[in-house]
Amino acid sequence: MTTTENRPVAGTDPRTGQELPTGIVESTPDEVRATTAAALAVAPALAALDRTRRAGLLRSQADALESARGRIVEVADAETALGAARLNGELTRTAFQFRFFADVVDDGGFLEAAIDHAGPTPMGPRPDLRRMLVPIGPVAVFGASNFPLAFSVPGGDTASALAAGNPVVVKAHNSHPATAQLVHEVLTAALPAGALGLVFGREAGRQLVADPAIRAVGFTGSLSGGRALLDIIDARPDPVPFYGELSSLNALVVTEAAARERGAEIGAALVGSVTGSAGQLCTKPGLVLVPTGPAGDAVVDAAATALRAAEVVPLLNERIHHSYLADTEQLRSAPGVQTIATGRPTAAGFGVAPLLVGAAADAVPAEAFAEYFGPAVVVVRYAEPAELGSVIAQLPASLTATLHVGAGERVPDLVAALGRTAGRIVFDGFPTGVAVSWAQHHGGPWPATNSLHTSVGATAVRRFLRPLTWQDAPEHALPPELRDTPEPTLPRRVDGRLEPAVERS
Amino acid sequence: MTTTENRPVAGTDPRTGQELPTGIVESTPDEVRATTAAALAVAPALAALDRTRRAGLLRSQADALESARGRIVEVADAETALGAARLNGELTRTAFQFRFFADVVDDGGFLEAAIDHAGPTPMGPRPDLRRMLVPIGPVAVFGASNFPLAFSVPGGDTASALAAGNPVVVKAHNSHPATAQLVHEVLTAALPAGALGLVFGREAGRQLVADPAIRAVGFTGSLSGGRALLDIIDARPDPVPFYGELSSLNALVVTEAAARERGAEIGAALVGSVTGSAGQLCTKPGLVLVPTGPAGDAVVDAAATALRAAEVVPLLNERIHHSYLADTEQLRSAPGVQTIATGRPTAAGFGVAPLLVGAAADAVPAEAFAEYFGPAVVVVRYAEPAELGSVIAQLPASLTATLHVGAGERVPDLVAALGRTAGRIVFDGFPTGVAVSWAQHHGGPWPATNSLHTSVGATAVRRFLRPLTWQDAPEHALPPELRDTPEPTLPRRVDGRLEPAVERS
Repeated sequence: MTTTENRPVAGTDPRTGQELPTGIVESTPDEVRATTAAALAVAPALAALDRTRRAGLLRSQADALESARGRIVEVADAETALGAARLNGELTRTAFQFRFFADVVDDGGFLEAAIDHAGPTPMGPRPDLRRMLVPIGPVAVFGASNFPLAFSVPGGDTASALAAGNPVVVKAHNSHPATAQLVHEVLTAALPAGALGLVFGREAGRQLVADPAIRAVGFTGSLSGGRALLDIIDARPDPVPFYGELSSLNALVVTEAAARERGAEIGAALVGSVTGSAGQLCTKPGLVLVPTGPAGDAVVDAAATALRAAEVVPLLNERIHHSYLADTEQLRSAPGVQTIATGRPTAAGFGVAPLLVGAAADAVPAEAFAEYFGPAVVVVRYAEPAELGSVIAQLPASLTATLHVGAGERVPDLVAALGRTAGRIVFDGFPTGVAVSWAQHHGGPWPATNSLHTSVGATAVRRFLRPLTWQDAPEHALPPELRDTPEPTLPRRVDGRLEPAVERS
Repeated sequence: MTTTENRPVAGTDPRTGQELPTGIVESTPDEVRATTAAALAVAPALAALDRTRRAGLLRSQADALESARGRIVEVADAETALGAARLNGELTRTAFQFRFFADVVDDGGFLEAAIDHAGPTPMGPRPDLRRMLVPIGPVAVFGASNFPLAFSVPGGDTASALAAGNPVVVKAHNSHPATAQLVHEVLTAALPAGALGLVFGREAGRQLVADPAIRAVGFTGSLSGGRALLDIIDARPDPVPFYGELSSLNALVVTEAAARERGAEIGAALVGSVTGSAGQLCTKPGLVLVPTGPAGDAVVDAAATALRAAEVVPLLNERIHHSYLADTEQLRSAPGVQTIATGRPTAAGFGVAPLLVGAAADAVPAEAFAEYFGPAVVVVRYAEPAELGSVIAQLPASLTATLHVGAGERVPDLVAALGRTAGRIVFDGFPTGVAVSWAQHHGGPWPATNSLHTSVGATAVRRFLRPLTWQDAPEHALPPELRDTPEPTLPRRVDGRLEPAVERS
């Protein structure tokens, strides 16, 4: 471990590639320890807040964000170049997300409260058993480069960990340190001390994951970065849950019927999904399966035309810029890969040209199955269903899979095969744009995520909760949610029967 | 990797220590591969079974077990010496468990079905999103030595994985190979080919965990054994979930008031919980906190008397026997530890004497916080609440914590502190005896288990399921549980509102 005391943390302006001094320095080991200690100290008080107050706390976070909207968007745009429209939308989403989790807390169903009264069973007499989920303890959250708000300090991991009743310590992403610091200041004004900590620097992040006070880790980033954190967790005397969102190819399949019916429309819309936010989205479609022949040609031609016309913002930072250039160069020279179209290069800073390449289904090189973080997409042309099936069988697991079919077309085997590769299957649309809602799932088999849980939507809170059962407890020793009287307002499973919440008066 | 082809797998008779030839040999690498391939091949068909059929399959497993009750108990008793009464009870429990999971499948709530209809949101228009849990794929299950039925071939991991819609491959425990083989024969007669595989031998187990077809691992056993499997998983290109139930101290606290009111009763009952099944239970109380002074003395005296009179079955195998002797010897000679009582040694085979030792709360050696698999218990005497709190703060996490209080006594801080160390908190009772029910939780922070999930009770199925969301899917492409018509009979969350199941006609 190298010494990192007081090393400066600078941002960069993606539009110029110039450094943006921030006055921020990397957190020292002592600072990291003090931050996790503060989180541990406040954990019991946070866990003991009743649901109404916890929901209020989440809504206050949304209000705080919105009250500083102008400043936050300005600072974030300077560090990310994502543009005011996108960043305003992201702030709206992030505030909505806090309010949504407040609704989830009010509802109470996430606690999975269950009561089995004492009684006889074929196994003999059963004691009174009452189960619900309780907060796991301090959670470490690693901000992502590509969402300075929605997957960073005020993002889904933070909101869901707070909703679950836990303190959070965020490791700021080096791509937007000033944004992280500003948002942290804005949020903590409305929180108990210790409830939301912030540390800077790579070593601080490693130390955080190894810290005994930390009970779970949420991470959105690269496969290699996730693996490195997982190694630290594996070396802990007490391995803690690691929730990584790591890599996603997001295959998209166009059937012959869909291509015939609306091939040009699909091709043009595909490019919007590939180039939005310069393709720096975890759900960007990276590999598109299109039939050979004239109907498929229309898809590809429309995509090429749209790509050449696309306006693309610069990439977020030097590392991403460098990787995109080097990796797409390798892709373009892989066996069997033809460059179909390149877009207009953005001039200065970390700007790049979007890229559309092609390959044949019977000879797809390994490079085509990799994720390219940026505005690149591979079209694979298939001549028949068997070829399509063979490519699908080679797909790495992803967050999403997308299927464009003809009107009334039924392809159950294709749906089943794609469902095995992904956590969300999109019909006749595009996978970018992830709604925050009750039925959302943003996850998938490894390497999409390493868990059976989501990082977006109501059930994201489940990652930061653990079950606890009370056996033969006197009423006063139970949490209010598990008492008989007064009957609490949340859904509960009583003696095996799910009972909806009693309506509030 | 050493070659293990055709090495014989023998049981031992714990009553004599003599080998029991079985005719079973360790599985070869080819046999393991064939078993996982068969599991993978049948997985889609199992996943596609409707819930009524899946429940029927689970009930057929219960019937099959009961139809072979006499033979199974006889073979298991020869290999484990647990006795016919205990083994008949375990078989009843295991059959009950299959039927219970059939009820869980019929209920359908475990699928967490949720529907968000398309509509406007503050984030913009939302597509139609429908989420439910789907089977994860083939599950590897490691049988435990101490429950030849309830935590082995037909045990909770197998039943919950099958209930979730997955095939299972069991690695038989070397302590009861003939039981494993017999039960496997009995169960597979009522299952599709490949749905329940069985392999023998340590290398076969290691190969199983590394096999690409395996999507999750359930393990009940030692901390070192669990860690070894976790290392194999960490080395996979795709780490899969590992559900280990590894080690549990199960502290039990007696307050001064409880000791005064019923000290002798608590002491005597404690010994029943410590010596039943020769203490080879994951929930055996291993460390008991008793006040100093006459009331506490009554607890300890009654325990010593009961321990001297206890009838204890022999230990399960040579390894456990050896560890118990060596480890309790070390415990007895640890600084500050006094031997209070030893019971009657069982004469032949793997028999041992139960053991009660004591230590003072202000000087508890590390040895007292370890789990001793067998009929040993440590009493720690505390003089005041601060001493009690200090010992609780040192407790490793456990499956359970138990609290004996006086009539009407309220100790909220103690309940909170114990709740942080365990997955189940037992009031005025004993932690052994784990009911299979909706509100049960059998798990805890590491090293009790490494997960946020239970291995006993309804929610055990959650370990072997993953979420999948369908976006804008046509009705025919959805599973029946997520369709609008006909309205399926399961609870669903529709537009954020939990709706109980429509009653079956």
